[in-house]
Amino acid sequence: MSDDENAIDPIFALHRRGKIEVRPTARVRDRDGLAMAYTPGVAKVSSAIAADESLADLYTWRSNVVAVVTDGTAVLGLGDIGAIAALPVMEGKALLFKEFGGVDAVPILLDTTDVDEIIETVAHIASGFGGINLEDISAPRCFEIERRLQERLNIPVFHDDQHGTAVVVLAALRNAALLTGRTLHDLRVVISGAGAAGVAITAVLLTAGVGDVAVGDSKGIVHTGRTDLNDVKQQLAATTNRAGVSGSIEAALAGADVFIGVSAGRVSEPAIASMAKESIVFALANPEPEVDHDVATRHARIVATGRSDYPNQINNVLAFPGIFKGALSVGATRITPGMKLAAAEALARVVGSDLASDHIIPSVFDLRVAPEVSEAVATAARADGVARR
Amino acid sequence: MSDDENAIDPIFALHRRGKIEVRPTARVRDRDGLAMAYTPGVAKVSSAIAADESLADLYTWRSNVVAVVTDGTAVLGLGDIGAIAALPVMEGKALLFKEFGGVDAVPILLDTTDVDEIIETVAHIASGFGGINLEDISAPRCFEIERRLQERLNIPVFHDDQHGTAVVVLAALRNAALLTGRTLHDLRVVISGAGAAGVAITAVLLTAGVGDVAVGDSKGIVHTGRTDLNDVKQQLAATTNRAGVSGSIEAALAGADVFIGVSAGRVSEPAIASMAKESIVFALANPEPEVDHDVATRHARIVATGRSDYPNQINNVLAFPGIFKGALSVGATRITPGMKLAAAEALARVVGSDLASDHIIPSVFDLRVAPEVSEAVATAARADGVARR
Repeated sequence: MSDDENAIDPIFALHRRGKIEVRPTARVRDRDGLAMAYTPGVAKVSSAIAADESLADLYTWRSNVVAVVTDGTAVLGLGDIGAIAALPVMEGKALLFKEFGGVDAVPILLDTTDVDEIIETVAHIASGFGGINLEDISAPRCFEIERRLQERLNIPVFHDDQHGTAVVVLAALRNAALLTGRTLHDLRVVISGAGAAGVAITAVLLTAGVGDVAVGDSKGIVHTGRTDLNDVKQQLAATTNRAGVSGSIEAALAGADVFIGVSAGRVSEPAIASMAKESIVFALANPEPEVDHDVATRHARIVATGRSDYPNQINNVLAFPGIFKGALSVGATRITPGMKLAAAEALARVVGSDLASDHIIPSVFDLRVAPEVSEAVATAARADGVARR
Repeated sequence: MSDDENAIDPIFALHRRGKIEVRPTARVRDRDGLAMAYTPGVAKVSSAIAADESLADLYTWRSNVVAVVTDGTAVLGLGDIGAIAALPVMEGKALLFKEFGGVDAVPILLDTTDVDEIIETVAHIASGFGGINLEDISAPRCFEIERRLQERLNIPVFHDDQHGTAVVVLAALRNAALLTGRTLHDLRVVISGAGAAGVAITAVLLTAGVGDVAVGDSKGIVHTGRTDLNDVKQQLAATTNRAGVSGSIEAALAGADVFIGVSAGRVSEPAIASMAKESIVFALANPEPEVDHDVATRHARIVATGRSDYPNQINNVLAFPGIFKGALSVGATRITPGMKLAAAEALARVVGSDLASDHIIPSVFDLRVAPEVSEAVATAARADGVARR
């Protein structure tokens, strides 16, 4: 694309020179100001922190700043395009962190995709941050990276492609169940996709008490009889699919209450039609949902997608700003399952009496969302004993 | 110090919650804005960068953002207080980068002091930055870290404690020589301190053509006959001290034209008095200069310190914002000796016709400084063939 073409595309025009900046919150207008914000005055603050490290939470930006870390291996629908090409997405994330959660976020691009090198690198720079948001790192590497980093660090390590998505899906599912007079325990759910999002959604649904969850990958439903499963999928097989389904995802949909698509695999209209009455379809692949919105609405009571041009948009922006804001506000050392459930419940509650088939989840521009999620997450962090203050 | 005490100290009050923040430069006020700055619109920009990585300079913040990296081993006059206690200094640096140079800067704290681990860590995160400012890393480790990182990366790696100081010292010395009717070649200089600043000042003075430089450490003048020298000091011995001086720093001052102190070692009044006529004394230790300002002025024609409460303050703030601004503006791959000389010359020129014994260097609040330094550095980068654009 030539520079001329870029110049007339409003998207490129908006991205010119990037979307974020670092700005002073203190001003140095004269020698006195300089002597307070920098040498010699700053030595007093540094000395105080050297004597009591916890003062860094009060007298630096650390307690409100998150590293948004990527290796660029699973970027949007684009795949493994590399960390530098992922930077506009990371800047977008940082923009949303600040705009919606008041959280400072800094993109960190990794030039390695090696799991050990990623863990070492992030661990070595983590002390300057209040939290680590892993972003667009491919499965199954993302699971090990998150787990091992969280074991090593005493700040939250949160892979948003997993848990942000899972929290919003759970919130939407709670409201969809409420609207159709069912409990989570009543639901039989089929998930298409056993990557980062599918695995995390499964975990959060099971924690929340969903009756049965079956997960499918490109080879069909994951079950204990399969011999082609990696560690993560073996664990999925052991904890899901109580009904013992095997075969294709489409076959598993017969009589199911809920379909959640988090892959690009298409699902046919007859498969959607074969679901239980009052079915719930979350077709979240972007930009092309697993089943067209108009087709899904012919058969399902409630339809959600990842797109902003249909009702019920499942968008991570509803979760990550409030989750980190809440976790940072109490100096949480990790994001517990309880904090994720609390975030989903708060998000579902914001809809309140506006609940309807085409409104099971708040708008991303609903200003109540981040404060409500934040407060619920902070409370849950205290209850779970992971709050440092 | 109790929280109550902190609350009434204006320095602590100014540092509350830190001194910098990340802010959006693009706004997302509605669904269209979100769709342009984030998904799905951002995918167009990421795809374009994936196809042509150089577009990252145009469509991300990378080309204007510097990592301010420290391991906290040599912080101000406080020494090895650790990276977290150094964070207020790094935030101060980031504040000054933006305020004076319009450059975005992000503090990066390292939890390791191991040279190899530091190099690996910084190299793995460097692709998200337009430059690396190493800060408050102790000598002699700082020399190896800077050299090896610069060999590995194609963006500027600049240890400000070395080169920022050296550039400002050279600028001040140029003007001091001009004022006293001497050329740099005429000068015999004695430097007290063979750490980061002393080594870098020596290098830049020799590059600029200063006649003779002798450097002293705690054991006295560095010369080729000494057997206690590390690699860096052996190289100093080989390239300095043309006159073959040995013994104490004070003895070496007899007849010298210039004293530059960059250690905390005191120098006696008789030693200063023994210098050549029209002598030049830069006593830069903070907060206590090597020789008191009032004592020095009894014997020297020109006196400079690192303090803001005396004339002629040698302050890195005069150099690093303009140097990085200039280097980033042309996508420089490194900071060459020629770029440092150009920065010093531009800085010296700003003083212009105001040149006087008590005004050999501009005020840090002189708004002409950063643009002049930046332009000179950019021009030198092009001349030296290290500009990417």
